[in-house]
Amino acid sequence: MRDTDRPNVVIIGGGFGGIAAAQELAGFDVDLVVLDRENHHVFQPLLYQVATASLSPQSISKPIRSILRDQMNCDVALANVRSIDPERRVVEYDGGTAAFDYLVVAAGARHDYFGHDDWEARAPGLKSLADATELRRRILLAFETAEHERDEGARRGALTFVIVGAGPTGVELAGAIKEIAGRTLPREYRNIDTTTARVVLVEGGPRVLSSFPDELSVRAVRDLERIGVEVRTGMSVTDVTETGILVNDDHIEADNIFWAAGVKASPLAESLRAPVDDRGRVIVEHDLRVPGHPRIFAIGDMASFTPAGSTQPLPGVAQVAIQMGRHAGMLIRSAISSSEHAPSTTFVYRDRGSMAVIGKNRAVAVIGSSRFTGFFAWILWATVHIAFLVSFRNRVRVLYDWAMSWLFNARDARVIIGEGERHDNNADATTADRR
Amino acid sequence: MRDTDRPNVVIIGGGFGGIAAAQELAGFDVDLVVLDRENHHVFQPLLYQVATASLSPQSISKPIRSILRDQMNCDVALANVRSIDPERRVVEYDGGTAAFDYLVVAAGARHDYFGHDDWEARAPGLKSLADATELRRRILLAFETAEHERDEGARRGALTFVIVGAGPTGVELAGAIKEIAGRTLPREYRNIDTTTARVVLVEGGPRVLSSFPDELSVRAVRDLERIGVEVRTGMSVTDVTETGILVNDDHIEADNIFWAAGVKASPLAESLRAPVDDRGRVIVEHDLRVPGHPRIFAIGDMASFTPAGSTQPLPGVAQVAIQMGRHAGMLIRSAISSSEHAPSTTFVYRDRGSMAVIGKNRAVAVIGSSRFTGFFAWILWATVHIAFLVSFRNRVRVLYDWAMSWLFNARDARVIIGEGERHDNNADATTADRR
Repeated sequence: MRDTDRPNVVIIGGGFGGIAAAQELAGFDVDLVVLDRENHHVFQPLLYQVATASLSPQSISKPIRSILRDQMNCDVALANVRSIDPERRVVEYDGGTAAFDYLVVAAGARHDYFGHDDWEARAPGLKSLADATELRRRILLAFETAEHERDEGARRGALTFVIVGAGPTGVELAGAIKEIAGRTLPREYRNIDTTTARVVLVEGGPRVLSSFPDELSVRAVRDLERIGVEVRTGMSVTDVTETGILVNDDHIEADNIFWAAGVKASPLAESLRAPVDDRGRVIVEHDLRVPGHPRIFAIGDMASFTPAGSTQPLPGVAQVAIQMGRHAGMLIRSAISSSEHAPSTTFVYRDRGSMAVIGKNRAVAVIGSSRFTGFFAWILWATVHIAFLVSFRNRVRVLYDWAMSWLFNARDARVIIGEGERHDNNADATTADRR
Repeated sequence: MRDTDRPNVVIIGGGFGGIAAAQELAGFDVDLVVLDRENHHVFQPLLYQVATASLSPQSISKPIRSILRDQMNCDVALANVRSIDPERRVVEYDGGTAAFDYLVVAAGARHDYFGHDDWEARAPGLKSLADATELRRRILLAFETAEHERDEGARRGALTFVIVGAGPTGVELAGAIKEIAGRTLPREYRNIDTTTARVVLVEGGPRVLSSFPDELSVRAVRDLERIGVEVRTGMSVTDVTETGILVNDDHIEADNIFWAAGVKASPLAESLRAPVDDRGRVIVEHDLRVPGHPRIFAIGDMASFTPAGSTQPLPGVAQVAIQMGRHAGMLIRSAISSSEHAPSTTFVYRDRGSMAVIGKNRAVAVIGSSRFTGFFAWILWATVHIAFLVSFRNRVRVLYDWAMSWLFNARDARVIIGEGERHDNNADATTADRR
């Protein structure tokens, strides 16, 4: 099906950035291929709702092939990319290679354990659907274990959840776990009072939601504490043990530890042999090109881009990735159509705001110079997230599930699939194998 | 919470039979516990729709705890039962034991490979949600593999699906796979014509749907062939190989083999030390008691019960299990309330009919002396299945998904979770580990 006359464009990654880049090239005379190691795009901002059994994995994901099916210049391949050869212009994946004239690297990021990768089995993070179903399994099993545990200390450990990192994911996860324990489960257990479940949110920095204005961090802490989450800022994790976690020399006994503390770029960044920042992200040029390789763009969580006048690189959020994807696609289009040297337009990021949910009816949001809190912010959050969901059909299903959840505190996705047979929740080896 | 004065009733299994038995004891002065190795009840008749990406696992399952939450005399435990000691009246599970005054054994069945258990990794069956998501993964990966396979023979193997066993599950699975290939996927692939996917339904007996009247078997074959399924009756599987399957010395090259040929009762039947039939089912007495153990009942797929005047034991279907569960619950109730020896009421099965779906708008059904085929039977099937779904909320979601699927041939649950990273689909070792 490949036409050798047409330029080959390869996009690595079917996340927000990769899809946006592909769509920008729709109807254009190129041979385009999107490579991803999963068959589906995930709406990552709602992953925590899968982890906390509000939504099913299907509701926030869609086959990449299905999203791009009407874009006839675009091929999709399930492929785990191993390395990039920028000189020979070849991408190597398990089972084959793909030559490119232009390349967009949008392979995203994974959790960063800051040199303690051995903590991952005990303190998994939340980046993929597999992560989310694993977290869901652990959260649900914790209550099952506690229900039939006779030792009081062990029972308390089973009912203690520590979330490391108080960015939006950590805050949302902590709030949702406390809500399951407090609203969804109480009537279903006979031997335990699920409302006594302890949720501790640990943050190394001085405040939660550090990318938000100060006043919203203060409000978020107030709202979190009101629903019963213990917030501990300025606390560093020094060890993750068999029975809990060591925070500033204080040991918290906890069976359930979840990691939302930091991410590092995909190791693919290294094979580009370009300068990277402390999180492994490629320090891209002003137009998102990889230094020294004018035909290669790095975008999204893989790119370190500091706007003029700013001291901080842009954060790893969906809207940055989408806007970068569009920019890269646009530059490739004009490079090809001008048949000359590629133009060099500076990437300009337009911040449309940030928001984080704290619990039922509570959120914080910042849009331009306006700040919102409480119920109104929550409505705003729900509206924006529904609007951005990729597929019309998923949108209806999510709205329906949210309505049920809001009206009845129901969480229909409370199903443990896979390793649920065992009575304990030490599935570390199996979990590690799955990655 | 246990009151030693009240009789202990233990139910092993939260399937149709176990739930029915538990509900029959609602409001009654007993200490009841339901043990299951999964946290959820599954609506098994719709499992094939999860395997073929029409429904999400959440849509056909519900936490057992949630189903029984208002029944205050009932406790639920996630427990893998290892053995039963009928003399000492104790059930032993991973991590503990449960003493009983009355016991209902409803642990169901697994696939039967007729002495070739080594075939399971290559030819998995469909009994649990984990099975269903594994089948879905294999079906979806098959098309991904074919899309990028250059060798014509290998590509044809990837696009060949063999289903062994033409009972309702086999027939429904074969029809649904052909429909995915023919209606859902064609527009999404660039290099393959998914409508050429080959679906072969192999049956050892002389006809498909052998539990149905002859004329419906004939009609089912006609409908299956009309949508493109190859039906081969009177063919025995002699081997499952690396590259395909040997059927009556004829080798069919196929990457995808699914097993719907037979089941055998849970091995728990053996620890009852009672007579079993050729499928390992306990040959129960006329009132469902286990011979020699008047306080133990075996029901559902674990019971071999031949009604008076019949030569065949009742089939392993939902309505048999439900009616048996109610009967066992009723007998336990009257045994306790009479404070004397347990009464001995004969179990009488009322057959409400059987049905099987062949494809969009096609089904066969038999209700009493009436037979139905085609569109009307399909509507009947959909109505009955919706009516029997355990939870109101799931019902609405299933209806919605079916409407989408019917109107747009959409299958929203097409998401590969877990081992989706690899490009091949030989995940046998991993699959086996998961069981």
